[in-house]
Amino acid sequence: MTGAASPWLARRAARTPGRLAVVCDEARLSFAGLDRACRAAAGRLRRAGVAPGDRVALWLEPGLGFVVAWWAVAYAGATAVPLNTRLTAVEAAWQVADAEPAALLFDAAQADRAGQAVGPGGPAAIAWEASVWAEEGAPGGAPADPAPEGVAAIVYTSGTTGRPKGALVTWANLWHNAAAQAMALGSREDDRWLSCLPMFHVSGLAMLSRCALFGLPLFVQPRFDPERVNAAIDADRITAVSVVATALERMLEARDGRPYPPWLRLVLSGGGPTPRALLERAVAEGVPVATTYGLTETASQAVSLAPADLPGHLGSAGLPLMPLDARIVGADGGTLPPDEIGEIAVRGPTVVAGYWRQPEATARAIRDGWLFTGDLGRLDADGYLFVADRREDLIVSGGENVYPAEVEAVLLGHPDVADAAVVGLADAQWGQAVAAAVVPAPGRRPDPEGLRRFAGRLLAGYKVPRRIRLVETLPRTASGKLRRGAVREGWRDDG
Amino acid sequence: MTGAASPWLARRAARTPGRLAVVCDEARLSFAGLDRACRAAAGRLRRAGVAPGDRVALWLEPGLGFVVAWWAVAYAGATAVPLNTRLTAVEAAWQVADAEPAALLFDAAQADRAGQAVGPGGPAAIAWEASVWAEEGAPGGAPADPAPEGVAAIVYTSGTTGRPKGALVTWANLWHNAAAQAMALGSREDDRWLSCLPMFHVSGLAMLSRCALFGLPLFVQPRFDPERVNAAIDADRITAVSVVATALERMLEARDGRPYPPWLRLVLSGGGPTPRALLERAVAEGVPVATTYGLTETASQAVSLAPADLPGHLGSAGLPLMPLDARIVGADGGTLPPDEIGEIAVRGPTVVAGYWRQPEATARAIRDGWLFTGDLGRLDADGYLFVADRREDLIVSGGENVYPAEVEAVLLGHPDVADAAVVGLADAQWGQAVAAAVVPAPGRRPDPEGLRRFAGRLLAGYKVPRRIRLVETLPRTASGKLRRGAVREGWRDDG
Repeated sequence: MTGAASPWLARRAARTPGRLAVVCDEARLSFAGLDRACRAAAGRLRRAGVAPGDRVALWLEPGLGFVVAWWAVAYAGATAVPLNTRLTAVEAAWQVADAEPAALLFDAAQADRAGQAVGPGGPAAIAWEASVWAEEGAPGGAPADPAPEGVAAIVYTSGTTGRPKGALVTWANLWHNAAAQAMALGSREDDRWLSCLPMFHVSGLAMLSRCALFGLPLFVQPRFDPERVNAAIDADRITAVSVVATALERMLEARDGRPYPPWLRLVLSGGGPTPRALLERAVAEGVPVATTYGLTETASQAVSLAPADLPGHLGSAGLPLMPLDARIVGADGGTLPPDEIGEIAVRGPTVVAGYWRQPEATARAIRDGWLFTGDLGRLDADGYLFVADRREDLIVSGGENVYPAEVEAVLLGHPDVADAAVVGLADAQWGQAVAAAVVPAPGRRPDPEGLRRFAGRLLAGYKVPRRIRLVETLPRTASGKLRRGAVREGWRDDG
Repeated sequence: MTGAASPWLARRAARTPGRLAVVCDEARLSFAGLDRACRAAAGRLRRAGVAPGDRVALWLEPGLGFVVAWWAVAYAGATAVPLNTRLTAVEAAWQVADAEPAALLFDAAQADRAGQAVGPGGPAAIAWEASVWAEEGAPGGAPADPAPEGVAAIVYTSGTTGRPKGALVTWANLWHNAAAQAMALGSREDDRWLSCLPMFHVSGLAMLSRCALFGLPLFVQPRFDPERVNAAIDADRITAVSVVATALERMLEARDGRPYPPWLRLVLSGGGPTPRALLERAVAEGVPVATTYGLTETASQAVSLAPADLPGHLGSAGLPLMPLDARIVGADGGTLPPDEIGEIAVRGPTVVAGYWRQPEATARAIRDGWLFTGDLGRLDADGYLFVADRREDLIVSGGENVYPAEVEAVLLGHPDVADAAVVGLADAQWGQAVAAAVVPAPGRRPDPEGLRRFAGRLLAGYKVPRRIRLVETLPRTASGKLRRGAVREGWRDDG
C-alpha cells in the first residue's frame, strides 16, 4: 500500500500543474500555485516547531486559508484537528486540551478567542494569514509522505455522554471515500465543485481530498448565500455542489423555478434528512439532487442515492457506497430482515480507525469491523436505506449536530436549574430547532433569556436552546429513562 | 480495510440488480443475472473440490464463460490462474504444474489440449460450458469474502530467464487500479465498455473488476474484428474500448475517416508502444486515444495520457496514475534527472504482492516498495513518461510479450542448432515480428521451416520465429554479452 497516502496535492501538482485548483474571492490558484503555497505554509509550521506525528488545530473559516492549512499540515507530516468555528472559546479549549496539538491556526474571526482556546502554556497560536503562504522565498522542504493508515485528521463529534470524541480519519478512509463516491455518482474530467458550507466537517475534508485526487477545481464561497451559489452554478459552470437540506431549500426559493443549466449534475444533500416535500420539489424542477447519509465515523457519506434513482426512491438515503456493507441490527444484536427498523451498522474501508485516546468508546462503536451508528433505520428488500431517525437524542439543526446531553450539562450548571431536557423541534428553516424543558431549582424561577445568555457563553450559538419552557417535572419511564417524545409534545400547542 | 475486497460483483448485484452487466453474442445479463450465474458456477467448483485458498486455472477464450469463471472463482474463495489460450499444451502444463490449481476450466477451443495440460494425476479438468452456470436449481451458497490483501489472480509473465513467473495480483491492486483510472480518465455513469481482446491478460481482469465496481456494462467480442468493433461503437453506444496499437490501426483503416460518434470518449491503447504516425492520424481524425503503459506487475496500466492531453504530448505514455510514483534509475541505482534515460521504476498500491513461490525473483523486482520494470525510459521536466524501449530483450508482437530467452531455449533443444539469438524486427502489422539467428551445429545445416515446425510444437504460435537465418557466429561484446542490435542488423538488407 506504499504511496497511496498524502500528500495527494503534491502528486497532483506534479501531474497537472497548470490545471485550476481553487478559486476563492479574488484568489485563483493552479495546482502548482496551491502546492507552492502549501510548501511555504508547511515551512512556517516546521519553524513553529511542528514535527511529523504532531497534531495541528485548525480554527478557520472556509476559504483559501483553510485549504492551504489542510495540505500544509499534511506536508509537515502532521495530523489536522479541525475545530468548529462556532464553538465558544470554552468548547474549543476542551478539544485543544484533549488533542494536545503542537499549534493552533486561527484567522481573524477567531482572533479574539484563540488565546483563550490554547490557554496558558498551551500550544503556539499562529495567525493564519495570506502572508504565511505567500512566503515565496521561504524554505518549504519536501512534503512528508504519511502512510495510508496514517491519521489525516482528528474530527470531534459529540455523543450521548456529551463529551466530544475525536474520530481518527485516515488517509485510506479519505481515499476510499473519494473512489467510492465516483463509483456511485461518477466523476467527470470536467467536474467543478462548489463549496459553500463549513470545511471543518468531515464532508469538507472529503471534498478537499477528492478534488486533489481527481484534479478538479474547487470554488469556495466562505459563507452560504443562495443567490451567490445559484449565480456561480451559472457563471462558473459548477457541476457539483454539496449542501444541507436547509441550504437546498433556500437555493430553490431563490431560483424561483428557473431551470439550472445542463452542466449541473450533482447537488449532494446531506448532514441530516432531506424533507420529502423538498425532494418532490427538486424532482419536479429537474434539480439533480443526490441524497446522502454519512457520519464523521464513516469519513463522510456512506450511503447515497444518485439523482437518476431519486424519483423511484423518494425518502431513501440510497445504497451503501461500494464496497461498504450495511445491515440493520435488532435489540438482540442479530441482523434484521428487510423493512424492519433497527440500528444502522456499516462496515468497510471508510470506517474510521477509532477515537483518539478512547479505546473503550472505540470498542463500543466499532465491533468486528462494524460501526454501530446509533441511528435507526431500515433497509428495503432492494437494499435501499431509509433512515427512520438519527440516534434518538440527536438534533440536527441547519446541518450541525447537537447532542442534548452536552446542552443539558451546561443548563444544569446554572444555580436556578434543578433538571433539564433538551430536544429538537421541527423547524421549517433549520430542520430542527433546539428547545429545553427546565425544572427550576426549589424556590427559584429562572428567566429563559438569562438562561440563554448563560448557555451562550459556554456553547456554540447553534447549540443554545431557541426555546425554553419551565416545567414542574420531566416525563420519565418507570425505570427513570427520559421520554423525549413526551418532552417534545409540551410544545405541540404553541404552534 | 475490511470489506474492500471481492466479491465486488455480489455487492454490485445487490445495489443495482437490474442494470445491464454483460453482453456477449446472444447473451445479455443484468448484474443480478450474472450474479446468479456465478453463484451456480461457484457451486459447481465447490462440488469439484475447490476450497477457499485454492487456485483454479482458466483456459478460456474471451466471452461470457470467462466472465462467469472469473467471479465464480472469487465466489468460491479461490485464486484465478488465467492461462494464455495461445499456449501450447506443453507451455500450459508447465504453468499448471507451477501453480498447482485444484481445477482447470477449459472451453471447446482448448478441449484437445486440456488433458495434456493437466497431465496424469493432475487437477480436475472441467469443461466450462453454459450448462455449468445455467444450473438454476443448484445450491450455490453465499460468496466468499476474501480480504483485500487476498490474491485475486496469479498471472504468468515471462522474464529474462525464460522461466515464467506468476505475478500475485491482489484485490487491493485491482481496486486501486480501477479508482486510479477514474481519477486519470474520469468515469461516467453512462460509460459502456467494449472488450475485444484476450481476457487472460491483467488488463482484461482489470476491466472485469472496473465494470463491477462502477456498475458499468461490458460488451464482449470474443474475437477482434475491426468492422465489428466499429459497428458496436455506433450501435451499442460504446463509450470506452481497450485495444493494442495494431488493433487501433485496423479500426482506423476500416473506419476510413468516417467520424466516430460523440459518445466515444476513450480508446485505451496499451500493450506496447503506439507508433507516432498512428497517434498523429488519431489526433487528426479526432479519435479520443489514451495511450497507456503498464505491466502485469502493476495490475494493468500504471501510466496514462488522457485524450485531451495527447496532442501536446505525442509519443509520451503519459503521467503516472494517482497515487503512483515513477522515477528513472541510473546504472548506479540513483534517480536520474529529467530527460535522462534509465530504468523505469514504479511504486504504489497497484504494484503486485510479488511472484508465486519465487521469493528471490520478488526481492530482485520489488525493492523498498519500488518495482523495477526492466524497461528503459525517461521522464520529462513535466513528469511525462517516454518509454525509450521495453526491456532490451522484450519483443511485443500484436500486444503479446515474447521473451527471447524462452524461444532461444527451445531452439537450442534442436540437435542441428549450436547457438541462437532471437530478436524483434519492426513489422508494419504486428509492431514487431519474432526473428531468430541460428548457428548450425558442426556439420549440420538446419532447415528453417523444420525449425519453425519444431518450435511450434513447444511454443505458442506468436512466439515462433517468423524469420530464421543461419549465421556462422553471433555478434557478442568482449565480455561475451550478446549484441542484439547487431543481430537485428542482419536483416536490414532483406527489406
